[in-house]
Amino acid sequence: MRLVRYRSPLGGDVARSGAVVEVAGVDRVVDLGADTLPELLAAGSAPLHAAIAAGAAAAPLLSDVRLEAPVRPGKILCLGYNYRGHVPDGVDPTADDPDFPDVFVKTPNTLGGPADPVVVPAVADDVDYEGEIAVVIGRRAKDVGIDDALDHVAGFTILNDVSDRSWQRRQSQWAMGKCFDGFAPLGPWLVTPDEAGDPQDMLVEVVRDGVVTVSQSTATTIFSVAFVVSYLSSVMTLEPGDIISTGTPQKLPAAQGSHRPLRPGDAVTVRIERLGELTTTFIGGPA
Amino acid sequence: MRLVRYRSPLGGDVARSGAVVEVAGVDRVVDLGADTLPELLAAGSAPLHAAIAAGAAAAPLLSDVRLEAPVRPGKILCLGYNYRGHVPDGVDPTADDPDFPDVFVKTPNTLGGPADPVVVPAVADDVDYEGEIAVVIGRRAKDVGIDDALDHVAGFTILNDVSDRSWQRRQSQWAMGKCFDGFAPLGPWLVTPDEAGDPQDMLVEVVRDGVVTVSQSTATTIFSVAFVVSYLSSVMTLEPGDIISTGTPQKLPAAQGSHRPLRPGDAVTVRIERLGELTTTFIGGPA
Repeated sequence: MRLVRYRSPLGGDVARSGAVVEVAGVDRVVDLGADTLPELLAAGSAPLHAAIAAGAAAAPLLSDVRLEAPVRPGKILCLGYNYRGHVPDGVDPTADDPDFPDVFVKTPNTLGGPADPVVVPAVADDVDYEGEIAVVIGRRAKDVGIDDALDHVAGFTILNDVSDRSWQRRQSQWAMGKCFDGFAPLGPWLVTPDEAGDPQDMLVEVVRDGVVTVSQSTATTIFSVAFVVSYLSSVMTLEPGDIISTGTPQKLPAAQGSHRPLRPGDAVTVRIERLGELTTTFIGGPA
Repeated sequence: MRLVRYRSPLGGDVARSGAVVEVAGVDRVVDLGADTLPELLAAGSAPLHAAIAAGAAAAPLLSDVRLEAPVRPGKILCLGYNYRGHVPDGVDPTADDPDFPDVFVKTPNTLGGPADPVVVPAVADDVDYEGEIAVVIGRRAKDVGIDDALDHVAGFTILNDVSDRSWQRRQSQWAMGKCFDGFAPLGPWLVTPDEAGDPQDMLVEVVRDGVVTVSQSTATTIFSVAFVVSYLSSVMTLEPGDIISTGTPQKLPAAQGSHRPLRPGDAVTVRIERLGELTTTFIGGPA
């Protein structure tokens, strides 16, 4: 299933949860009520499938609703270096693997929906994108083993870990560069594990100005989703709706050479196999 | 005023807000309703003073209620190095000042009340304390200047930024060492600015095993509260209830020499001039 939070064409104060279903070749959004997605998923998939079957024909078009971030996470946990670089033939690609993931936090003010533009702050002149798979926790997790970790995952979505490199590097800790308002657009939907498939076999791509600047499979990650969920849960209780963003691949060599900071008017699409696409437009803000 | 969140002797599902008042030499807690402290403070102090005057005589004893963390912050922002070290006479104490604060984030699972013990996790063998003044945001702040910054502060409380040094230093980012469940005991109360006085003239002390291990005034901080609020608000929108913990002084030389990690059975008191004391006991957890 592809699950969303959205506001209907008629508006309304409260976002609804919904499922995206294709009817006669067109995506529609079936209303699933006001509960959050982890709550809905906790009840099992049978009632959801029944609601979807009953509501599909009369559902509004996906193109007529405004999507919000699919969850409202209490925590947005992010990984630093987690994809191996490209090395010449004969060189061990695991030689530089760190022993442990590097973990940092994005604050709640960073969360954005898939339709929300990101403001390039007037004080930030080195803004960059990081296209990442975001794991959504579905069931509370504390001290879970690697073998049980994926049972606590509600599904997967896409996060652009927008970062200002200059602010990020001012001091040892990255928070200031990572936590500008709106710097974590999330979506467009949560894809449940049955449709998302193997999280260690997904192609992550970023498209900027029509050019593919990132293209790497999660088969090259250092730490698997199951390991990361288990590892984090050894320190902190993970709650339903929490997000773990699994790090970004390096840019392709040509994109590294031609990189320039994001400016108002730019658009970045993160495209992930079986998860969909998240396109974010960048706009100017108050001076 | 000293403002608290608490559960009454009769229990109840929802914490109440209250004011601590001294009546005939004994502290009592006057019920201020179910609103959060930033909401109450936004209405101005006159209705609070009236409620306190009307309710003081019949209020329960402070010693009979269970205090919770005075706010439920959406963000817990913390500073690294912010107190100047002690230098010999003739040496410029500002010589090593960084240009900008080092900022990191503690996740919501770290929050604890002033009466809650902190579990020393079985996987953490290098747990340390950091006694800090925590600024509580009272009014939304974005791009506020230094001169206006303190207008957005609801008051001050005490935070023990409990940290496991081994986990903190595994990688470049400190989150894993900072974000164990319960590693941010907060309280006992929010002290409003009129009673807290000048935040750049407070003595911060830590007492461990009856020995003062930290004793330094906020006059020696590198970045003032007003600067820090302004600086953070240039990046992120600060919301009512958000916490900014302003960093810890270094341990006194003798305490540095004799330091040992916190173990179950230890207790640490953070004592801050005009704010009160926060005593945290450390206990064992499941293996």
